Amino acid sequence: MNDRVDLNCDMGESFGAYRIGADDAVFPYITSANVACGFHGGDPSVMRATLARAKELGVSAGAHPGLPDLIGFGRRGMDVTPDEVYDLVVYQVGALQGFARATGVPLRHVKAHGALYNMAAVKRELAAAIARAVRDVDRSLILFGLPASHLISEGESAGLTTASEAFADRNYMNDGTLVSRRRPDAQVHDADEAVRRSVRMVREGKVTAIDGRELSMRVDTICIHGDGPHAAEFAQRLRQGFQAAGIGLQPVGA
Amino acid sequence: MNDRVDLNCDMGESFGAYRIGADDAVFPYITSANVACGFHGGDPSVMRATLARAKELGVSAGAHPGLPDLIGFGRRGMDVTPDEVYDLVVYQVGALQGFARATGVPLRHVKAHGALYNMAAVKRELAAAIARAVRDVDRSLILFGLPASHLISEGESAGLTTASEAFADRNYMNDGTLVSRRRPDAQVHDADEAVRRSVRMVREGKVTAIDGRELSMRVDTICIHGDGPHAAEFAQRLRQGFQAAGIGLQPVGA
Amino acid sequence: MNDRVDLNCDMGESFGAYRIGADDAVFPYITSANVACGFHGGDPSVMRATLARAKELGVSAGAHPGLPDLIGFGRRGMDVTPDEVYDLVVYQVGALQGFARATGVPLRHVKAHGALYNMAAVKRELAAAIARAVRDVDRSLILFGLPASHLISEGESAGLTTASEAFADRNYMNDGTLVSRRRPDAQVHDADEAVRRSVRMVREGKVTAIDGRELSMRVDTICIHGDGPHAAEFAQRLRQGFQAAGIGLQPVGA
Amino acid sequence: MNDRVDLNCDMGESFGAYRIGADDAVFPYITSANVACGFHGGDPSVMRATLARAKELGVSAGAHPGLPDLIGFGRRGMDVTPDEVYDLVVYQVGALQGFARATGVPLRHVKAHGALYNMAAVKRELAAAIARAVRDVDRSLILFGLPASHLISEGESAGLTTASEAFADRNYMNDGTLVSRRRPDAQVHDADEAVRRSVRMVREGKVTAIDGRELSMRVDTICIHGDGPHAAEFAQRLRQGFQAAGIGLQPVGA
Repeated sequence: MNDRVDLNCDMGESFGAYRIGADDAVFPYITSANVACGFHGGDPSVMRATLARAKELGVSAGAHPGLPDLIGFGRRGMDVTPDEVYDLVVYQVGALQGFARATGVPLRHVKAHGALYNMAAVKRELAAAIARAVRDVDRSLILFGLPASHLISEGESAGLTTASEAFADRNYMNDGTLVSRRRPDAQVHDADEAVRRSVRMVREGKVTAIDGRELSMRVDTICIHGDGPHAAEFAQRLRQGFQAAGIGLQPVGA
Repeated sequence: MNDRVDLNCDMGESFGAYRIGADDAVFPYITSANVACGFHGGDPSVMRATLARAKELGVSAGAHPGLPDLIGFGRRGMDVTPDEVYDLVVYQVGALQGFARATGVPLRHVKAHGALYNMAAVKRELAAAIARAVRDVDRSLILFGLPASHLISEGESAGLTTASEAFADRNYMNDGTLVSRRRPDAQVHDADEAVRRSVRMVREGKVTAIDGRELSMRVDTICIHGDGPHAAEFAQRLRQGFQAAGIGLQPVGA
Repeated sequence: MNDRVDLNCDMGESFGAYRIGADDAVFPYITSANVACGFHGGDPSVMRATLARAKELGVSAGAHPGLPDLIGFGRRGMDVTPDEVYDLVVYQVGALQGFARATGVPLRHVKAHGALYNMAAVKRELAAAIARAVRDVDRSLILFGLPASHLISEGESAGLTTASEAFADRNYMNDGTLVSRRRPDAQVHDADEAVRRSVRMVREGKVTAIDGRELSMRVDTICIHGDGPHAAEFAQRLRQGFQAAGIGLQPVGA
Repeated sequence: MNDRVDLNCDMGESFGAYRIGADDAVFPYITSANVACGFHGGDPSVMRATLARAKELGVSAGAHPGLPDLIGFGRRGMDVTPDEVYDLVVYQVGALQGFARATGVPLRHVKAHGALYNMAAVKRELAAAIARAVRDVDRSLILFGLPASHLISEGESAGLTTASEAFADRNYMNDGTLVSRRRPDAQVHDADEAVRRSVRMVREGKVTAIDGRELSMRVDTICIHGDGPHAAEFAQRLRQGFQAAGIGLQPVGA
């Protein structure tokens, strides 16, 4: 369906003396960086440095707001209200925009992190709160979400441009949701297979679910993980796979 | 020297279930609210509510960034570097600007909080870091500081408009700095006396220091404290004192 | 069933510059203080001062560990694992025991706070994790829980002494659980009625549920809330009610 | 002076998803582990795992309390009062003792971390606060400090056993204090030289200061750093150096 795609990765999740991820190695291969905003990871100095690096490499930058749970890295679900979600998204996107202005790097997108992303996929009112927050801070920001998810529909209802996201190395359930990380088959472990699947998702808009069923999905951006030992190597292979298939790589909205 | 003055107060310092200050009572009497940004006090929901209230009452709003020390309320000095200060000011001002856009309340000023304000008064490089941070986020923001302090001179060097601030109920040393809160004579306890001093500081640009010496100082804005039991009552009396003296009350830069 | 009862209240939930609760006013009327341990509320200085006050008044002290969510005051459910719960209970009980030794006030009990208490009521494995943590730190500590709840049964399985807790001013569902705070009838608003119910719960081991059904429950300790405007007044009336009914007041395990 | 010495290292400073240090590699070579307690680094799960590992390897364990500054890793000085220091030491040592009881690993010592250690070296009242806190929690704990420092003298005044600590790879000033990390000559970069110096410090109680002067100092324990790329290799060489020199390695107080 698409002859081009965006390659996004969570970046800038280090905190104080703590380093996490392989940002330096991965940065050259991606087109969009989801920059952590200090709640689940990231800190003010890391945010500035990450935007500066994105500018240097011409990588598009976006906000990656998470739940206020540094010790759990924003991966633990919390009983947050839509108002709380609205406020924590406004706060974090605003904070990163401060650095965006200071470094001269315009923000292009917003992608919720971890449990916030997952909760918004199943609770429409949380997806709506995220969409309203993004719209109220800057209506030109593109909202990322799973294809056909609440985040996409609520983003559109709020008048935002949206981008449907697929995961390069994750398996899908029958209904288009991701296989839970608690299951052994959550991930596509073979890199060649992950590249082939990614190319097909972009070009044909199709992916084979865990039970063999063919799923149709629109894919505007592909997410890769930046924290495994082979993150940069996989990013490079995925990039080569897209190029070999004649699929252009560029940030969403560019 | 001045026939008008701004009346500012620290607002929005509540956090989660914790209430602090007498915001509701004090808000009607001030012209500028210094809104806490979540590091020394304040949280995302309080920030939004405080800006909404400022809008309702036509009170000008500004950012009140502090050190990352919630348990110490930002009042304990820390060995922070200029880079760290730059980053934490960009972060906090940016976060509040997120809410400013979301609520349609333009930010007009920035006032550093507590130990950050005090450290910047004695360490020029920290004052310079604050000034650069404010300029880089939004060069139209007015920077508050003690008269003739590093914050004022560095703010001007950075091309910012500045506002010289006096304290309605604090005593001054010989050299124009505030008497330390550790001394018993830090505060002017008599409300009438504090009002008279404030009026004189604005109209004549003069105040009598603790040892009797006359100090000259430019005063653009007067700070009142919002957390004592009589905060609102004092704000009201001060306001009446200015009106009786023919001094207009309006936000800086208005 | 019982001719004596313990009266417990959450205490020491202030944090840094933030005051919460009416500890000074309520302390004289209770027999057990549940002392916050720094995660949902409380801080090291408040912990020390609260234990010192308990010692002065001869009030029994216990640990009141909560989820790591200061901004949500530990009231928001979180997807924590049993291992995480075990560790955060050991940490917080241990921290308070540091002050217990330093002030010479032996800890007598442990009561989980807010969402942690509620989650343990419905997830047996979390109740078991709390019970194991308490046992592993000090097997003489008495574990509080709703009558016939997982906390009580898991506490007993772990070899702990347990205390069944009723709430003086809360309504009960048919099945003995508390009416959710989201419902308008969560609370018994009439103080006299709350006192009568409390006396009956202790003496007869019975309470009338929201739909009129009679529930039987063992009650070793009654919880009162320390943060309303009339907390101390209610505590006093409840105490008088028990005395008038010939029910002695003393800490559990005393 | 000594025919045996303790080898200590800061351990367990990882936090949530963040890993720091080379604990696994270094653990086999040390005799005492200074376990972080959650303020500057470490978290409840890491504390438990670190004590469990110490038990497995027969390494002695102690508490390593720091300032409440996770983002600064406890390395930034703060204007804390003696009371605040007392409270944060009681809290952290208590929390670790919770895990010590739960894992059956007795704590043997306390070593203040980073800025807290450095501040206590120059402010006697902070050293005294640390000493009182340790004594009040458990008077059998051994307090670490620089030779002839306030921590040692105040520890002795409080009735504690103390251990004088030297740093294997740091240079010393004329007066026996460490050369500041801000200076290029803070560290002894040559590993062989660092080993030779360490052996001499233990056996002869002497070290050559940066200006060539011979300093005398009692050394009970040698600190190595666990976070460089060659931490484990250096630990191994140091251990071999001591063995070759006939100096036994065993925990202080053993």
